[in-house]
Amino acid sequence: MSWSITEGSLALPTLQRLYQTGQLRPTELVEAIYERIAACPVKTIWIHLLPRDEVLAQAAHLEQRWAAANDASPLYGIPYAVKDNIDVAGHPTTAACPAFSYTPAQSATVVKRLNEAGALLIGKTNLDQFATGLVGTRSPYGACANPFDTRYIAGGSSAGSAVAVAAELVSFALGTDTAGSGRVPAGFNNIVGLKPSKGLVSTAGVLPACRSLDCVSIFALTCDDAQTVLDVCQGPDPTDPFSRAKPAHLASQPLNIEGRPFRFGVPVPEQLQFFGNGDYARLFHEAVQHMTDLGGEKIEIDYKPFVETANLLYGGPWVAERYSAIKAFITARPEELFPATRTIIESGRNFTAVDAYESYYQLRAYQQQVAPLWRDIDLLLVPTAGTIYTIEAVNAEPLVLNTNLGYYTNFVNLLDLCAWAVPNGFQSNGLPMGVTLIAPAFQDDALGRLAGAFHRHRQHGLEAIGSA
Amino acid sequence: MSWSITEGSLALPTLQRLYQTGQLRPTELVEAIYERIAACPVKTIWIHLLPRDEVLAQAAHLEQRWAAANDASPLYGIPYAVKDNIDVAGHPTTAACPAFSYTPAQSATVVKRLNEAGALLIGKTNLDQFATGLVGTRSPYGACANPFDTRYIAGGSSAGSAVAVAAELVSFALGTDTAGSGRVPAGFNNIVGLKPSKGLVSTAGVLPACRSLDCVSIFALTCDDAQTVLDVCQGPDPTDPFSRAKPAHLASQPLNIEGRPFRFGVPVPEQLQFFGNGDYARLFHEAVQHMTDLGGEKIEIDYKPFVETANLLYGGPWVAERYSAIKAFITARPEELFPATRTIIESGRNFTAVDAYESYYQLRAYQQQVAPLWRDIDLLLVPTAGTIYTIEAVNAEPLVLNTNLGYYTNFVNLLDLCAWAVPNGFQSNGLPMGVTLIAPAFQDDALGRLAGAFHRHRQHGLEAIGSA
Repeated sequence: MSWSITEGSLALPTLQRLYQTGQLRPTELVEAIYERIAACPVKTIWIHLLPRDEVLAQAAHLEQRWAAANDASPLYGIPYAVKDNIDVAGHPTTAACPAFSYTPAQSATVVKRLNEAGALLIGKTNLDQFATGLVGTRSPYGACANPFDTRYIAGGSSAGSAVAVAAELVSFALGTDTAGSGRVPAGFNNIVGLKPSKGLVSTAGVLPACRSLDCVSIFALTCDDAQTVLDVCQGPDPTDPFSRAKPAHLASQPLNIEGRPFRFGVPVPEQLQFFGNGDYARLFHEAVQHMTDLGGEKIEIDYKPFVETANLLYGGPWVAERYSAIKAFITARPEELFPATRTIIESGRNFTAVDAYESYYQLRAYQQQVAPLWRDIDLLLVPTAGTIYTIEAVNAEPLVLNTNLGYYTNFVNLLDLCAWAVPNGFQSNGLPMGVTLIAPAFQDDALGRLAGAFHRHRQHGLEAIGSA
Repeated sequence: MSWSITEGSLALPTLQRLYQTGQLRPTELVEAIYERIAACPVKTIWIHLLPRDEVLAQAAHLEQRWAAANDASPLYGIPYAVKDNIDVAGHPTTAACPAFSYTPAQSATVVKRLNEAGALLIGKTNLDQFATGLVGTRSPYGACANPFDTRYIAGGSSAGSAVAVAAELVSFALGTDTAGSGRVPAGFNNIVGLKPSKGLVSTAGVLPACRSLDCVSIFALTCDDAQTVLDVCQGPDPTDPFSRAKPAHLASQPLNIEGRPFRFGVPVPEQLQFFGNGDYARLFHEAVQHMTDLGGEKIEIDYKPFVETANLLYGGPWVAERYSAIKAFITARPEELFPATRTIIESGRNFTAVDAYESYYQLRAYQQQVAPLWRDIDLLLVPTAGTIYTIEAVNAEPLVLNTNLGYYTNFVNLLDLCAWAVPNGFQSNGLPMGVTLIAPAFQDDALGRLAGAFHRHRQHGLEAIGSA
């Protein structure tokens, strides 16, 4: 085999060009990927790798389609991974809890759509058990280490999916995002993490965390790649009660960032939290400057209602949704859960319906309070996380440090927003830092174009690893 | 005093013409109203009538404004009543529970807007305690009797407001509507009952029943009158977390009933329930014919998801919202509640947050199931209630008969719909029957124009009482 993966070579346009010019075939790519997976130093990325022969057969089938009809499927031969709380027909879904494992007969809607578009599924990835956590360490399959420095966390809960993209084992990967699980790992791995508007991508066939808030998220090397994947994935699904069509009138009302100058909100300085990480603080201020370079006007905003909304998610009754999702299992076999996960999810039993409605009222009040802000700003720019921790530190203090990581992410789904996490440079020790662009629901595409411009301007391009 | 109220003379255009031509002044109207109230045979309409002198002073103040500036306030001198779960500054709010009574310093937003528009508040009306019921009998202030036959119920929970309009003691009245409280009494009193889209009229200053579902409703003699009142009431209120702006794009997408033929859904015959009332069945079939006469095409639809949604409200955790609304009071003094009301509301303690979220999931599934229906029909036409009961019958079997009355109303707020209840003729014994037109949220105005056309076609005009 002559072809091998090099930096950036799994980006969609690169693979598409190689396929179109006949320099590469999907079966050759699959061989190269399995070799690269075998050589990868992080051994906790995968919970279930698809058998190489099965993927090769799939790739060969694609090649036949190509030969027969010059296949123009948008994701022809593009390798991807999915977080192991998303169903793939005939393969186990564990949600990082072996005892919970089941083998679904049907794939999740999103997986079906990707496969129909020619994408090649490689495997299912490690996560914080039951998608509960932002650290990537709460898994009996092992803490998922950061590929830039394996002493550090990869972030979670979609840890394995983010690392699989960062380590260039796949072109893109699916995560899920309820409180930040699709963004925090993007920030810690120097890749793009798209948390689409709620309901835009079907969650049918996804094991719920908080079913009223869950989103399928997309990790990719570039914003353009993530957008291409979103274009394939999105759209109403009658089998998902939380599926929503993008309102038709929004098509003609894009985010006001195409005609400069646009306005981006940042928390007032005293509300920015970096938990002692001076590098992250410096990098965020650089990001603000870069956004200004792109034509943006910085507007300092009061971040308090966002923080209060975030606190509502952590302290409030939404954890009862997590309990509901695995009620039969956690009742019968609580000892099978990871200790921190069990503590969190069992607390969901203690809330009453009165609690649930009253927290909903409080949320509505925050939503009402925040709504007028979007007349003053087109988007919100925040650090993806305020700092990064070592695995050791997280193990020593699992709950508090996890909460710190959600300071810029927890409120997003509760307030019905969409978000793009993009790379934003490196600490002096080489660990990546990211920022997140946030806007109201259904502004995904326009926000993504700005996120892409920011990413290119930041000049880290496709170099996912070690470009500091 | 020479002027006195006759049939139809409290309709808005009539009063407005009398004021404009100088044939009547608001102070004269107030005198006539208090005389008529004193003579009214139904004595359980009011919980708190405003002192005649206070209203006269208010009317005199209006007359000075008129003299000074030829006042063009849209509701100049129009008398109205409000249900006694809506705050009026300086007057007690009882919610039909004397021990619960408090005197608010501020009026509800909706009352403020009406008063600013020149409307004259006459008093606060009787209701099923804590707006819990569709019968109008669950009140320590006495069962509110039907003015067409005092052996029969007036319907509830907004009983007094409906009867005040039907008995022509006021031109319009405010109710509230969570599960049908603004529609069932309209149907039993031969008047119009508008249940606007959720969030269109502020609920700030309204004692909640189910806060996530509550709407302020409007009773009037005609659809035009109700629309005039809605135009004054509606609009975003930053102090109400459930307030919603009418989406701007809907202004240009009215309900498709202005260009005929329009399509109206009716339940398939075996799903129509009249609980043995042959007159109501016959009258409903006449309504279908009248709607066809107006250019409508009848489409028979599967009513099952509507029934299942309705059952969700009655059997499910939403009653915890009722408990939350009066938590401190019902905990401290449960014996002060009406027995049926106490039984219902205390059951709200027994639901968990898991129950609340799981019922919400079920609701989302029904919402998803029903959504495509609105591509096939422009509106749904149903009986407002399937039958009417005597007060004696309801007292003997308070819960089951109450549930029967909600068969055509309970699902409306859960499915985010708007509704107009309009008169539809009379039983052979002279008791009225109504039908309700239902459409998706924010179609209020267009649906109201059709409801008005139907009402006029039905030829009961302004004759609210005794025109059978």
